Amino acid sequence: MTRRGRSRQDNSQVERSTAYRHLEHFLSPQSVFSEDAVEDIHLSALRLLEELGIRILLPEARNLFRGAGARVDDDTQMVRIGRDAVLAAIDAAPRRTRLRAASVDREQIFAPGRLLFSAGAGCPNCNDIKRGRRPGTLEAYIETLKLQQGFDVIHKFGPSVEAQDVPAPFRHYEMTKAQLVTGDKPMFVYSRGRRQVEECFELIRLALQLSDDDFTDGAWATTIINTNSPRQLDVPMAEGIIDFARARQMCIITPFCLAGAMAPITPAGALVLQHAEALACITLSQLARPGAPVAYGGFSSNVDMKSGAPAFGTPEHVMMTLGSGQLARRIGFPWRSSAGAASNTADMQAAGETQISLWGAMLANATLIVHGAGWLEGGLTFGFEKFINDLETLQTMAELCRAPAADEAGLAWDALAETEPGGHFFAARHTLANYRDAFYPPLVADLSNFGSWSEAGAKTSTERAVTIWENTLRNHRPPVHAAAAVDRIQPFIEERVAGGGAPPSGS
Amino acid sequence: MTRRGRSRQDNSQVERSTAYRHLEHFLSPQSVFSEDAVEDIHLSALRLLEELGIRILLPEARNLFRGAGARVDDDTQMVRIGRDAVLAAIDAAPRRTRLRAASVDREQIFAPGRLLFSAGAGCPNCNDIKRGRRPGTLEAYIETLKLQQGFDVIHKFGPSVEAQDVPAPFRHYEMTKAQLVTGDKPMFVYSRGRRQVEECFELIRLALQLSDDDFTDGAWATTIINTNSPRQLDVPMAEGIIDFARARQMCIITPFCLAGAMAPITPAGALVLQHAEALACITLSQLARPGAPVAYGGFSSNVDMKSGAPAFGTPEHVMMTLGSGQLARRIGFPWRSSAGAASNTADMQAAGETQISLWGAMLANATLIVHGAGWLEGGLTFGFEKFINDLETLQTMAELCRAPAADEAGLAWDALAETEPGGHFFAARHTLANYRDAFYPPLVADLSNFGSWSEAGAKTSTERAVTIWENTLRNHRPPVHAAAAVDRIQPFIEERVAGGGAPPSGS
Repeated sequence: MTRRGRSRQDNSQVERSTAYRHLEHFLSPQSVFSEDAVEDIHLSALRLLEELGIRILLPEARNLFRGAGARVDDDTQMVRIGRDAVLAAIDAAPRRTRLRAASVDREQIFAPGRLLFSAGAGCPNCNDIKRGRRPGTLEAYIETLKLQQGFDVIHKFGPSVEAQDVPAPFRHYEMTKAQLVTGDKPMFVYSRGRRQVEECFELIRLALQLSDDDFTDGAWATTIINTNSPRQLDVPMAEGIIDFARARQMCIITPFCLAGAMAPITPAGALVLQHAEALACITLSQLARPGAPVAYGGFSSNVDMKSGAPAFGTPEHVMMTLGSGQLARRIGFPWRSSAGAASNTADMQAAGETQISLWGAMLANATLIVHGAGWLEGGLTFGFEKFINDLETLQTMAELCRAPAADEAGLAWDALAETEPGGHFFAARHTLANYRDAFYPPLVADLSNFGSWSEAGAKTSTERAVTIWENTLRNHRPPVHAAAAVDRIQPFIEERVAGGGAPPSGS
Repeated sequence: MTRRGRSRQDNSQVERSTAYRHLEHFLSPQSVFSEDAVEDIHLSALRLLEELGIRILLPEARNLFRGAGARVDDDTQMVRIGRDAVLAAIDAAPRRTRLRAASVDREQIFAPGRLLFSAGAGCPNCNDIKRGRRPGTLEAYIETLKLQQGFDVIHKFGPSVEAQDVPAPFRHYEMTKAQLVTGDKPMFVYSRGRRQVEECFELIRLALQLSDDDFTDGAWATTIINTNSPRQLDVPMAEGIIDFARARQMCIITPFCLAGAMAPITPAGALVLQHAEALACITLSQLARPGAPVAYGGFSSNVDMKSGAPAFGTPEHVMMTLGSGQLARRIGFPWRSSAGAASNTADMQAAGETQISLWGAMLANATLIVHGAGWLEGGLTFGFEKFINDLETLQTMAELCRAPAADEAGLAWDALAETEPGGHFFAARHTLANYRDAFYPPLVADLSNFGSWSEAGAKTSTERAVTIWENTLRNHRPPVHAAAAVDRIQPFIEERVAGGGAPPSGS
């Protein structure tokens, strides 16, 4: 894991690289349930699928389950899945997937023990101090892609802001093109219907000149599969599972189980539901194509009992995240978790919610932590200043993935011996030899004293973040492949747009 | 560990107790150094004490070391301590101390595995939105004691704000009296000289009518012992170690080793120094009285390389905290760690720094986490709104100390079976039976949507905290023992004040 290294000479700055490109977890995975309890949750989920079943709205998906021996009722759309089919799917799925990217050194291995962060996603709105809160646009989406590209600790692209100004039948062209021309990280494709998904795959193949073999060697696209908890899978999501599996692209299964609302009010009960729904989706994926890349996942938290709103960073959220990690380990899968914040602005509440939920995911050794930076209002808004402040935390996590040296130089005996009692180490040879890159250089934290800080305008870290995101946007350079990629895909897009585009599937 | 229970009937609120009085760690202790590296740090510290030595400014302390076979040079004040004396002290010290308190149910066991939080401490200034930043006063100290008393997740009193308006020879009377009459939690006494310490002990004995046997059965007072890193122990601190040990009260040893300033620039090197200084102090304590209560501790972080200011919540800070936990486990001691924040205001930076450093201490299984709430500006200011926001995190940690149920009720099979696919659990019998106390009720987090939040004034959690601390101060009630305690100590205080008080020892 090479994460550090001297970069260019710059006398005004501490020379330390923040190229946190490939990370492995530094914490041993923590538990909140006993082994027996985890087994009870796992077995309850298998029983749920067998006895209560799950409603699956796509006939093709029901047929796949029927072929695997499930009891299917097409009138009620209910599918009761025997545990043999589920266990066979668990066996068939890969534990390690190579996430491909336009640049080889942006590729990631999606496997237990690895650590990937992605930005806040799925936000209909965006918000920054300069321009205020507003509905998402393509321009805002591209800006947030530039922010994601600008920091190596963001390991893959996500659908940060919804480009609401682009009509739905054409939006997937613009979202895919935007990723291809703005950066070179692993890409995201929404599962909003068969035609859209196939067109997005085609755009990636065209832009990066991938042969069929190239395209199926690892996953070039990932999608998020949300269930309609409780116990329901809609048409576009079922299509997405099938289409991604058949194209050997990656499904990240994410039931969104809010305890007390769409899930039982107890953490264990909500996890039974999450686990059952995730296993059903994993099974469908492997029925569509054995060995297709698929990740376990969950996003279970609780609702606020006063307002009924989703809460994040709560004790119950952390408990369910830790339990999710235990369930992922129970089946041996890499998995996706989330940070999250319900706060309406980039304040201490937002930081607290994001930190607590993020630490929960770290303690649970989640492979991919989504919404790691920029999420506000429970996902209704992508906050630019929050993104910058959250990055400080993600970069700190990344730094912690490397243990400090405890060799002779690390133990610093000579420095200890040469420094007088009551003295200081500022001028020790050991200090002078190491000070340039001894410490993580803060991104937005201001360490100046109260007087200096006041004289500089007494700005909060939220206010200071403005300059950082502005500079990141200003300094953005398209990746080397961008211009050629546009040339290759533009005729395809224009032809499809002229044909009316591809409307999303109804659910 | 009873932390929850129904309290009074209140139809307008979720009924759930936040009486987080006795906690045990929920995380398994994490490591950042290999076992070999920990041993190297431990052995380097022993070698440092033997070969390089430590300067000890108090002749009486040097004599105690001399008596234990140390090589003492009274001219240079250097003391070189053989490892036999250190290892004998490690053997002699207790691993478990009962922290006594005016109310029995506020008592704490200070032992490995236990978890205690205390508030931000040692702050010369205080700050709140209503009154601004200002030098500490006795009134402000009393206010912050009321805040500490008002929340059960704060387990012992600390010297939150310095009462700068009370002259130094009298300040210890007022600080001790303030604790005695404001609350009933384990108390703090500064080591600012022999006479002050003895008078504070006498005030506690008088106020609570303790016999000599009562007073030495467990520790009624704790103090913090800071070294003058590197390798120096001043007069009041050495006196404090001796006087607390002889009175069987508790010393919490806390070298403050800033890597790159008062300590080597590498985490391992800084820990060699911290460990050596802590062991020297522990040894002095046990030489003064074998078996005296003493805690290992450390507060090692790094300096900001741009400003030279102390930094907190950095990756290096977390690394040194994890290493400190390993060293405490190496010698089998309960120990004190710290959260911390350098931010000048209660913003996302402050929350991030505090959270990261707090999680570091949690991961390191620190017995006592000081500065858990309210610390700003690296300890120069106690922030009222920051205190309230930090409490949300501490209460979340406390909630996590209890595992969720995974029995039949927890697994919620009946609720899963009775709820239709695509439906919701709001009206499930299981939900109705549990909703009142299913979830932690947030203290300051606002879960309302953006519209409602905007209509309510778009207040940040920092701004919303004002009402909470105001109400806490307004609702404060003195403990039952307060009036009688004042009657018992007032004549003593008046007599001592008339005699000119007790000036602090020079260092």
